[in-house]
Amino acid sequence: MQIPLQSSKTIRSFAAAFGLFVAGASAQADLDTATLERIRDAAMSSDYAWQRLADLSDKIGPRLSGSRGAEAAVVQVSQAMRNAGLDVRLQPVKVPHWVRGAEQAELVDYAGRPEGITQPLHLSTLGASVATPAKGIVAAVLFVRSLAELEGRAAEVPGKIVLINMPFDQNLADNGQAGTAYSQAGEARFKGPAVAARLGAAAVLVRSVGGANYRLPHTGNTSWDADGPKIPAAALAAEDAMLIERLSAQGPVKLRLLLTPKTLPDADSHNVLADLRGREKPDEVVIVSGHLDSWDLGTGAVDDGIGVASSMGALQVLQSLGIRPRRSVRMVAWMNEENGGRGGVAYQAEAKPRIETQIAAIESDFGLSGPLGFSGSINATQLKRLEAVGRVLRTIGAGVMETRAGNAGADIAPLQALGVPGFAPIVDGRHYFDLHHTAADTLDKVDPLALRRQTAVLAVLAYALAEMNEPLERVPAP
Amino acid sequence: MQIPLQSSKTIRSFAAAFGLFVAGASAQADLDTATLERIRDAAMSSDYAWQRLADLSDKIGPRLSGSRGAEAAVVQVSQAMRNAGLDVRLQPVKVPHWVRGAEQAELVDYAGRPEGITQPLHLSTLGASVATPAKGIVAAVLFVRSLAELEGRAAEVPGKIVLINMPFDQNLADNGQAGTAYSQAGEARFKGPAVAARLGAAAVLVRSVGGANYRLPHTGNTSWDADGPKIPAAALAAEDAMLIERLSAQGPVKLRLLLTPKTLPDADSHNVLADLRGREKPDEVVIVSGHLDSWDLGTGAVDDGIGVASSMGALQVLQSLGIRPRRSVRMVAWMNEENGGRGGVAYQAEAKPRIETQIAAIESDFGLSGPLGFSGSINATQLKRLEAVGRVLRTIGAGVMETRAGNAGADIAPLQALGVPGFAPIVDGRHYFDLHHTAADTLDKVDPLALRRQTAVLAVLAYALAEMNEPLERVPAP
Repeated sequence: MQIPLQSSKTIRSFAAAFGLFVAGASAQADLDTATLERIRDAAMSSDYAWQRLADLSDKIGPRLSGSRGAEAAVVQVSQAMRNAGLDVRLQPVKVPHWVRGAEQAELVDYAGRPEGITQPLHLSTLGASVATPAKGIVAAVLFVRSLAELEGRAAEVPGKIVLINMPFDQNLADNGQAGTAYSQAGEARFKGPAVAARLGAAAVLVRSVGGANYRLPHTGNTSWDADGPKIPAAALAAEDAMLIERLSAQGPVKLRLLLTPKTLPDADSHNVLADLRGREKPDEVVIVSGHLDSWDLGTGAVDDGIGVASSMGALQVLQSLGIRPRRSVRMVAWMNEENGGRGGVAYQAEAKPRIETQIAAIESDFGLSGPLGFSGSINATQLKRLEAVGRVLRTIGAGVMETRAGNAGADIAPLQALGVPGFAPIVDGRHYFDLHHTAADTLDKVDPLALRRQTAVLAVLAYALAEMNEPLERVPAP
Repeated sequence: MQIPLQSSKTIRSFAAAFGLFVAGASAQADLDTATLERIRDAAMSSDYAWQRLADLSDKIGPRLSGSRGAEAAVVQVSQAMRNAGLDVRLQPVKVPHWVRGAEQAELVDYAGRPEGITQPLHLSTLGASVATPAKGIVAAVLFVRSLAELEGRAAEVPGKIVLINMPFDQNLADNGQAGTAYSQAGEARFKGPAVAARLGAAAVLVRSVGGANYRLPHTGNTSWDADGPKIPAAALAAEDAMLIERLSAQGPVKLRLLLTPKTLPDADSHNVLADLRGREKPDEVVIVSGHLDSWDLGTGAVDDGIGVASSMGALQVLQSLGIRPRRSVRMVAWMNEENGGRGGVAYQAEAKPRIETQIAAIESDFGLSGPLGFSGSINATQLKRLEAVGRVLRTIGAGVMETRAGNAGADIAPLQALGVPGFAPIVDGRHYFDLHHTAADTLDKVDPLALRRQTAVLAVLAYALAEMNEPLERVPAP
């Protein structure tokens, strides 16, 4: 998932101050409420999306780019969309092919350790990590609480295993600021390893980015500096990071680390595109999407099976009702959101010469615990044109409409960079990061009714965007 | 931990009906409120128990019987109690010595499986399990929802891997019935493997017994029939049991299982006994206790580091105040509660010839999330004699007093069988089974303030029992 970089408040305040809310009477005429209601109700009574989600997560499970699972998912989703009567196309994407391997760590020395005692640690190698030597490494730990502290203690770094302990702020998440909590704590994973490598660390551990401590490591990707050094890097379970924090306060801590990931040559893969052709302007496209790849620890039901399945469901609902909006609606199951973002880039490269045909893009990639509505990267005037959508979704508890600056999804960000309006469902994210990138991301975490509501949001919104007389205004790149 | 077998309600109703609550004026005179308050306040302002808990769980961690960790814990606790000025004795206990080994499983076939896809399962070998062949076994799964169904489908069992799926009822736990929820779901683990073995299963899996699904296997012991067959047995994470349930509904499921536990010869170990000698009747003893061994997945902070540390804390509080009750107070850190109960049996064997000297026994083995008070296996009249204890503890939210039939703790059950009154703290158990017997049982789960309250409950109660003019009446075996 991608985090909005700016709050929507600025835009709302601006709009209010300048009186930008207009009646939009002509815009209203675009959208027939009865049709929106029909779409909503069909989505609410269909288990099609649930079946697709169960197929993806139960029959295939993990789908990291380059894996057999990812390729099986491309085949499965294509087949299902063809079976639903849609035009399917596979768009080639070259993807990174990283494979996890073994991951082991144990505390081998610390103050007060009884003779012969070692303690196992729970961890998960980060995507893009390199391997330790085959026998592992044993080194002293340098415990730091921020990247600034790491830079400040540069002289102590060489040869050490650096542990960056930046806890996830669940209080922020509980207050509707899960994205901010993730961005704050995630800095350790996103940027920390490159800094530690540059300063000469032997390896780097980051505290898992997530709530709900059940000794689960939360995996994820890290990025290295171009031409910078790479070192072994892993996410430690929060409990183990806290243990090392306590032990470090009492004296030196030493640990043994073995990671054997491999980076294989880039692999051939695909975005799956399925089109419901528009009745008037079939070349103009509204995208509704999620990403097909997942991390390898869980079965990717939440991240992002939900996004793919509800997008597939949105198209199937329109198709089954025989509704054909003015423009085409395109389901995209993106490849490689998790560790490269190559699918979004490949799509943009193809679309760029005729970018004006890309009318809007919706991405669902923040799980769901009940959708509350949707946000768009558009201004208040433009949002007002979608008033009927909010009104129709309000009856299923999903009527919130917000303008939000920034990217609405990692895979549609390249389109947004070219001015395409971006949309995302607004969801209850309070516990999204409990499971995020862990083995516990499994089908049982998804409420079938909430998935129907999510499908309704995507179907009604996608239809409306494809049906409007005039497309939304383009949006300056975030 | 041990589960009370009968509700306290029967006894309370009985007492009320027969007017068994008496004034107990003479009993009141036994106990000086100011002294009880002094003990409570000292416990509430001491971090001694917390330090002991941190030493046990952070410095040693896992402490399964026969392991280096268990032996290090015997040494550590003895030393700490000696340092606190108490009389320490090690009581020999021969313990089972079971070692986990490798544990792996994966789904290798099921309806709709794409070519080349297998799915890893999360599981934990059960204590007393035997090993699979070194190459593992591959077999079809027989999915059942109860032991009755298993017996009813006996003809299908031979050669299968039986999965017994009995979910933990979190709703019961949320309503103060965690023990019942554990007993109900736990039947699969306690008895299921022996039944499956008798019916000719190749191996047996049970759904993990616990709440809070985070793909954690909850380990634990199982029991075999005397001279009955033994087979490989493991606890599957709830998510994986649910996955197999869904897949089994669509066709045959096959899995590969590899477990390599070993049962070594019984090992020499010890209960740790630490006495604060009584001023008048030093041969008479009130026990305050927890168990020192733990499962090997977590660090045993909750199960039962809390019980040991708060019992140590109770003695240290009395000692530091210079309070010496009429009878002796004895801290016992029991060995082998988790997979044999040998410590409690060894103590009983030694105590039996002079069982009248064992005045009462308290065991804390249900974690804590804030103690609410205490229960005793005594009748209402006897309970009334401890009224001052409840009154003094009420100010720290721990004033509930209940009579509860049944065993108050697994290690003191052998003493209760000989008529010794048994006591346990009453705790908030709603989320105890979220972590029970998992890797997530770690120090961060314990609230330091709640541990002080727990120590206060044990210290005040132990003192009162040791100080009363006349001991409590003996109790018929539960």
